[in-house]
Amino acid sequence: MLYLVGLGLGDAKDITVKGLEAVRRCRRVYLEAYTSVLTVGKEALEEFYGTELILADREMVEQEADSLLKEADVCDVAFLVVGDPFGATTHSDLVLRAVKLGIPYKVIHNASIMNAVGCCGLQLYNFGETVSIVFWTDTWKPESFFDKIEKNRQNGMHTLCLLDIKVKEQSLENLMKGRKIYEPPRYMSVNQAAEQLLAIIQNRRLQGEKPEITENTICVGLARVGAVDEKIASGTLQQMSTVELGAPLHSLIVTGTMHPLELEMLKLFSVDSSSFENKACQRTT
Amino acid sequence: MLYLVGLGLGDAKDITVKGLEAVRRCRRVYLEAYTSVLTVGKEALEEFYGTELILADREMVEQEADSLLKEADVCDVAFLVVGDPFGATTHSDLVLRAVKLGIPYKVIHNASIMNAVGCCGLQLYNFGETVSIVFWTDTWKPESFFDKIEKNRQNGMHTLCLLDIKVKEQSLENLMKGRKIYEPPRYMSVNQAAEQLLAIIQNRRLQGEKPEITENTICVGLARVGAVDEKIASGTLQQMSTVELGAPLHSLIVTGTMHPLELEMLKLFSVDSSSFENKACQRTT
Repeated sequence: MLYLVGLGLGDAKDITVKGLEAVRRCRRVYLEAYTSVLTVGKEALEEFYGTELILADREMVEQEADSLLKEADVCDVAFLVVGDPFGATTHSDLVLRAVKLGIPYKVIHNASIMNAVGCCGLQLYNFGETVSIVFWTDTWKPESFFDKIEKNRQNGMHTLCLLDIKVKEQSLENLMKGRKIYEPPRYMSVNQAAEQLLAIIQNRRLQGEKPEITENTICVGLARVGAVDEKIASGTLQQMSTVELGAPLHSLIVTGTMHPLELEMLKLFSVDSSSFENKACQRTT
Repeated sequence: MLYLVGLGLGDAKDITVKGLEAVRRCRRVYLEAYTSVLTVGKEALEEFYGTELILADREMVEQEADSLLKEADVCDVAFLVVGDPFGATTHSDLVLRAVKLGIPYKVIHNASIMNAVGCCGLQLYNFGETVSIVFWTDTWKPESFFDKIEKNRQNGMHTLCLLDIKVKEQSLENLMKGRKIYEPPRYMSVNQAAEQLLAIIQNRRLQGEKPEITENTICVGLARVGAVDEKIASGTLQQMSTVELGAPLHSLIVTGTMHPLELEMLKLFSVDSSSFENKACQRTT
């Protein structure tokens, strides 16, 4: 049996009882480590689970999937994923491969950022399409996510922005020379995401547009959702570019039209309650 | 401390280790029982948690919230919610009330239907706005959810349809006579939801429209997601009106544009693989 086990978002104890029992039963346990991170490391998980974990990077899952699935038809193998196995990232490829090999699989769900963002008080059924904001480079500054956020807001919907993660990236030089030397991991912060959005707003204005999203649009910055030191901050997009949220992972929500109850919840987290009230009231039902 | 604890979707063991520890520490533990159901009953939960549960119906949470929160500033109280506390239903009102009373609160997240539907292989970031399909009555047949599904599909997005639940409903007669006699609980099935959608399609055609969603639109029916006897079925909307999915809770997804990997996953669950291939290929990227 192949178990796909969601670990939730905080620490070792966010695994479900069912998930923990499965992990402890398995002969081999892989930890997917390229799309997200828990606030605790591999060692803390190993100690609590009482079993050794094999780190699975993207290369391994994509290129050595058969070794990962080896003998999973006669013994139990677990593939652990931060959040839910089918949350922000889907591991369909692994499932399809298992099915083709005749290996049964079982999904043990958990919270993912896709539903845990509800903790800020915005209602999940008022969210439109989720977008990913990628790190800009000197030569590549895509703006397509901005159009999606605008579209959601025009429809009154909130937008969850998942922020870029760069793990095991090679510099262009190392890549070209075939050297497997990796850059330090990078995680986009709410500040960086807000700055990129503000830059796009400026670009659009230079092109004579009047963007739906402005410096004053109410946003929510979230950091380490589900962990003990979780931080939520609500305020204008401008405020999000300077708010202090600490270590990764971060997410950003751009609000659409707000119900009074959503507004009241967001007030609990406002970085500046006086300006919040003022800006937010321009956009409630 | 007020703990809002998500129970996940399957059975007693879908609680997280952190959630279980909190529950066992609490002086009073309430089980929210009006927006969703676990496939196991209250007794099974009580046995596994090793603590007595107080059933909290809508009336209690809305009208007696203060008794629920009584002394939560000096002792620990838990409020258990099937799924995630901020998933398909939000319990913001309870949080706001606690904050006003100076009671600290903590959310222990879990899987909700909002992210667990990813198990069918459709990617969560390709979903648009979630809709609720309500039971039609002889005199009230709303169609607004259909417009939202159409809009999502026009934008290439999938739509998760949450299906109606009627718990502790009074008949009109009993309501008027002030008798607290309740009808047996009712849970909308995928069949019923599909039939209502098919009826709307007919209505629209009679009005000269050409609906975006037809009998042949590929849909996914899901039952008891996360439970041992979970069932997933993919096929046309017409097929969804007769597919056998058993006991509640059910959900229905109307697909938008599908990525080949999503399509390959849905094929695993197709009720009729030959027609599926045929219909689905009209709508892939």
